[in-house]
Amino acid sequence: MDQQTWVAVASVISAGLTIGLGSIGSALGEGRALAQALSSIAQQPDEAATITRTLFVGMAMVESTAIYCFVVSMILIFANPFWNQMTSQ
Amino acid sequence: MDQQTWVAVASVISAGLTIGLGSIGSALGEGRALAQALSSIAQQPDEAATITRTLFVGMAMVESTAIYCFVVSMILIFANPFWNQMTSQ
Amino acid sequence: MDQQTWVAVASVISAGLTIGLGSIGSALGEGRALAQALSSIAQQPDEAATITRTLFVGMAMVESTAIYCFVVSMILIFANPFWNQMTSQ
Amino acid sequence: MDQQTWVAVASVISAGLTIGLGSIGSALGEGRALAQALSSIAQQPDEAATITRTLFVGMAMVESTAIYCFVVSMILIFANPFWNQMTSQ
Amino acid sequence: MDQQTWVAVASVISAGLTIGLGSIGSALGEGRALAQALSSIAQQPDEAATITRTLFVGMAMVESTAIYCFVVSMILIFANPFWNQMTSQ
Amino acid sequence: MDQQTWVAVASVISAGLTIGLGSIGSALGEGRALAQALSSIAQQPDEAATITRTLFVGMAMVESTAIYCFVVSMILIFANPFWNQMTSQ
Amino acid sequence: MDQQTWVAVASVISAGLTIGLGSIGSALGEGRALAQALSSIAQQPDEAATITRTLFVGMAMVESTAIYCFVVSMILIFANPFWNQMTSQ
Amino acid sequence: MDQQTWVAVASVISAGLTIGLGSIGSALGEGRALAQALSSIAQQPDEAATITRTLFVGMAMVESTAIYCFVVSMILIFANPFWNQMTSQ
Amino acid sequence: MDQQTWVAVASVISAGLTIGLGSIGSALGEGRALAQALSSIAQQPDEAATITRTLFVGMAMVESTAIYCFVVSMILIFANPFWNQMTSQ
Amino acid sequence: MDQQTWVAVASVISAGLTIGLGSIGSALGEGRALAQALSSIAQQPDEAATITRTLFVGMAMVESTAIYCFVVSMILIFANPFWNQMTSQ
Amino acid sequence: MDQQTWVAVASVISAGLTIGLGSIGSALGEGRALAQALSSIAQQPDEAATITRTLFVGMAMVESTAIYCFVVSMILIFANPFWNQMTSQ
Amino acid sequence: MDQQTWVAVASVISAGLTIGLGSIGSALGEGRALAQALSSIAQQPDEAATITRTLFVGMAMVESTAIYCFVVSMILIFANPFWNQMTSQ
Amino acid sequence: MDQQTWVAVASVISAGLTIGLGSIGSALGEGRALAQALSSIAQQPDEAATITRTLFVGMAMVESTAIYCFVVSMILIFANPFWNQMTSQ
Amino acid sequence: MDQQTWVAVASVISAGLTIGLGSIGSALGEGRALAQALSSIAQQPDEAATITRTLFVGMAMVESTAIYCFVVSMILIFANPFWNQMTSQ
Repeated sequence: MDQQTWVAVASVISAGLTIGLGSIGSALGEGRALAQALSSIAQQPDEAATITRTLFVGMAMVESTAIYCFVVSMILIFANPFWNQMTSQ
Repeated sequence: MDQQTWVAVASVISAGLTIGLGSIGSALGEGRALAQALSSIAQQPDEAATITRTLFVGMAMVESTAIYCFVVSMILIFANPFWNQMTSQ
Repeated sequence: MDQQTWVAVASVISAGLTIGLGSIGSALGEGRALAQALSSIAQQPDEAATITRTLFVGMAMVESTAIYCFVVSMILIFANPFWNQMTSQ
Repeated sequence: MDQQTWVAVASVISAGLTIGLGSIGSALGEGRALAQALSSIAQQPDEAATITRTLFVGMAMVESTAIYCFVVSMILIFANPFWNQMTSQ
Repeated sequence: MDQQTWVAVASVISAGLTIGLGSIGSALGEGRALAQALSSIAQQPDEAATITRTLFVGMAMVESTAIYCFVVSMILIFANPFWNQMTSQ
Repeated sequence: MDQQTWVAVASVISAGLTIGLGSIGSALGEGRALAQALSSIAQQPDEAATITRTLFVGMAMVESTAIYCFVVSMILIFANPFWNQMTSQ
Repeated sequence: MDQQTWVAVASVISAGLTIGLGSIGSALGEGRALAQALSSIAQQPDEAATITRTLFVGMAMVESTAIYCFVVSMILIFANPFWNQMTSQ
Repeated sequence: MDQQTWVAVASVISAGLTIGLGSIGSALGEGRALAQALSSIAQQPDEAATITRTLFVGMAMVESTAIYCFVVSMILIFANPFWNQMTSQ
Repeated sequence: MDQQTWVAVASVISAGLTIGLGSIGSALGEGRALAQALSSIAQQPDEAATITRTLFVGMAMVESTAIYCFVVSMILIFANPFWNQMTSQ
Repeated sequence: MDQQTWVAVASVISAGLTIGLGSIGSALGEGRALAQALSSIAQQPDEAATITRTLFVGMAMVESTAIYCFVVSMILIFANPFWNQMTSQ
Repeated sequence: MDQQTWVAVASVISAGLTIGLGSIGSALGEGRALAQALSSIAQQPDEAATITRTLFVGMAMVESTAIYCFVVSMILIFANPFWNQMTSQ
Repeated sequence: MDQQTWVAVASVISAGLTIGLGSIGSALGEGRALAQALSSIAQQPDEAATITRTLFVGMAMVESTAIYCFVVSMILIFANPFWNQMTSQ
Repeated sequence: MDQQTWVAVASVISAGLTIGLGSIGSALGEGRALAQALSSIAQQPDEAATITRTLFVGMAMVESTAIYCFVVSMILIFANPFWNQMTSQ
Repeated sequence: MDQQTWVAVASVISAGLTIGLGSIGSALGEGRALAQALSSIAQQPDEAATITRTLFVGMAMVESTAIYCFVVSMILIFANPFWNQMTSQ
């Protein structure tokens, strides 16, 4: 098992775990906010526009933490600097 | 066990864990939002249309984190750049 | 233990864990939504039709995350590209 | 320990864990829905027919995730493609 | 340690863990439903017949997930196809 | 360490863990149901007979999952087919 | 380390873990039922006799799961069939 | 490291873990029952005698699971049959 | 590393873990009971004497599980029969 | 496996875990705050401007902990001083 | 690595874990009791003297479980009988 | 693998875990405080200024624990005294 | 790796884990008590002096468990008797 | 790998884990107290000064447990007595 293989194996496993772990928190956080939004709309229908707008802006911020993970995951698969340097030798 | 085998084994295990872990958060988050939506419809039937629309748009966002995991899982199985480079040598 | 065996062992274990982990979240999420649906029907019987329809559409979305896992599990068992490439050599 | 034995050992362990893990979520989810159904019947006896029908259709969907696990478990024991290919050599 | 022993050891351990894990979810789910049933009978004694009937049909469904585990556990001990094939050689 | 010893060691450890894990769920589930039964009797003393009867029938079903584990545990200790086959050789 | 020692070591560790794990669930379940019984007696002193009787019959059933573990633990220490067979050789 | 040492090491570790694990459940269960008893006495001082008597009989049953662990722990240290047989050889 | 050292190392680690694990449950259980006692005294000051007496007798029973652990821990350090037998040889 | 490879493997795994773990807390914390914000808007619509402003300033602070993790993750991938020093030798 | 070093290493690690684990339960239990005491004083200021006295006597009992751990930890560091016997040889 | 590589690998992994673990608590704690602040503003709009000021001063204190972790993480990457001493030899 | 190094490595790791684990319980316990104290002051401002005094005396007792850990941690770093004896040889 | 490297590796990993674990409890405890403080100010604005003062004195005590960890972490990096003694030889 040469150098390239070690880096490839580590990148594959790390890429999977990163997005796998990272999506748990985002999904739970968004689900909670969404549940509360629906409850608030039912309680105060006149504020549905404000609630929906705040919900989606906020969910975009929560989603951003999953996107960080997705970005790192993609970098490790398609733009891995360690892999590039080793294969270019 | 040569280089290809190591990468194949790592890809297979990582692909499974990625979607396995990633679906837990999404399913729980969507289940919670869905439960609250049904409760809100029962409480405020006149707002059923708004609640249902917000629910499905929001669930699409929560689903997106599971889809990130599914995408990474598919990339690791069918478009794995490390595997392609090694088999093309 | 040659190359094929390693890939076979990894595929078997990964296929099992993927659907095993993936069904936990879905089952819990669907159970929660179902429980709330029954509570809402009891509370607001006139809305039973809307609640039931929303419930089953929503459960289909929650089920989808389990289905992603089932798909990956089936791919790893019956359409594993790493296995196919190795046995075709 | 030859190739066949490794695949057999992996299949046996994986088959057990798959259904073992997969039944936890289903059983908890169904138990929760069932508990709520009984509570709803006591609260609104006139809707017992609707509640019971929704309960059993919904439990069938929750059960489906356990059945995915059971199917994968049976495939690994009785229709394992890796095992078949190796023993047919 | 020859081939048969490995398969026997794996089957013994897997059979125990399968039913051990699988009974946790079922027992907790049934306990919860049973507790709620007793509470509902106390609250609405006139519906005791409906509640009890729904309870036992529902518990049979929850029990089914434990029975899947018990079936897999028995198959691994008494009808293990890997063991049979190896001892018949 | 010959074949028999491996099977014996695996059977001993597996038998202990099976009943050890399996009794946790049953005990917690029965405890919960029992606690609710006592609460219901205090709330509705006239229904004590119905509640007690439902309680003990239900606890028998919950107990059944622990009994599955106990049966598997006894089989592994006293009627282990792998052990019998090996010692009869 | 010969055969006997392996079986002895496995039996000692397994016996301890079995009763150690098995007592956790029983103790928590009995504690919960006992707590509820005391609360119910305070709430409905006239039913103290019925409550106490149901409590102790129910606790005996919960205790039974701990006793299964204790029985397995004692069998592994004092009536271990694997140990007996090996020492009688 | 000869046979005796292995058995001694296993007995020492197992004895400690057994009582360590076993006391957790008992202590939590008794603490819960005791807390409820104090609450019930404050609520219904006239029933203090009945509550206290039921409390201590019940706690003795909860304590019994810790005592099973203590007994196994003492047996492993002072009356270990495996150790006795080996040192008597 | 001779026989004595193995037994000494195992005794040291086991003694520490035993009391470390065993004190968690006791401390939490006693803390819960104490908290409830203070709440009950504030609610029913006239029963302070009965509550305090029941509290301390009950805490002594909860403490007893920690004392079992402490006793086993002390036995393993100062009266370890395995160590004594080995050093007396 | 030379020095560079070890550092590369460690950096790849560490970068993934850092952002994976770090995004869990942020996403859950932001989801909770967002849920409460929606509830507060529904309860007090006149304060929607103040609530929304405080929400987004606060979420930026919660987001900052995820950003620390993202920064460390990026440093480990693109500006790793250990890697630079080793490749410059 | 001779005998003394093994015992020293085991004592150092065990001493740290013992007090580390043991302080968790005590601190949580005392914190809970203290929180309830403050709540009770606010609710019933006239009983502040009784509450405070009971609180500190009770906390001393909870503290005692942490002190058992501290004593074992100190014995392992400063009065370790295994270490003394080995260094005196 | 020489001395420098070991220290580099340990520093890379430790730096990642430190900030990864450290951000979980901070993010959850800040999210909780922020959620309560929004709730309090909705409840008592006249105190919005005091609440917001206390919130941000408090969040800075909670943030400080994440900053300790970030500082240690940066020291391990850019000012590691062990690495400096070894590379200066 | 000689004797001194083993003891040094064990002391360094143990010292860190001891205070790391020990501070979790204390911080959570003190945070809970502090939160309740603030709630009690808001509820009963006239008792602020008594509450604050009881709070800080109680927090000192909770803090004491963290201080035990800190003391053990310092002893392991600066006054380690095993290290002293070995370096003085 | 010589003596110095082992101590350096252990110090680096231990320093990171110490502050990483230690900041979790502090951050959660402070977040809880802060959340309650904001709630109390909203409920009793006239006591804002007393509440804020008690909050920050109390948070300083909670912070102190994180500071113990930070101190140990810094000692392990910059004033490690084991490292100093070894490098001075």
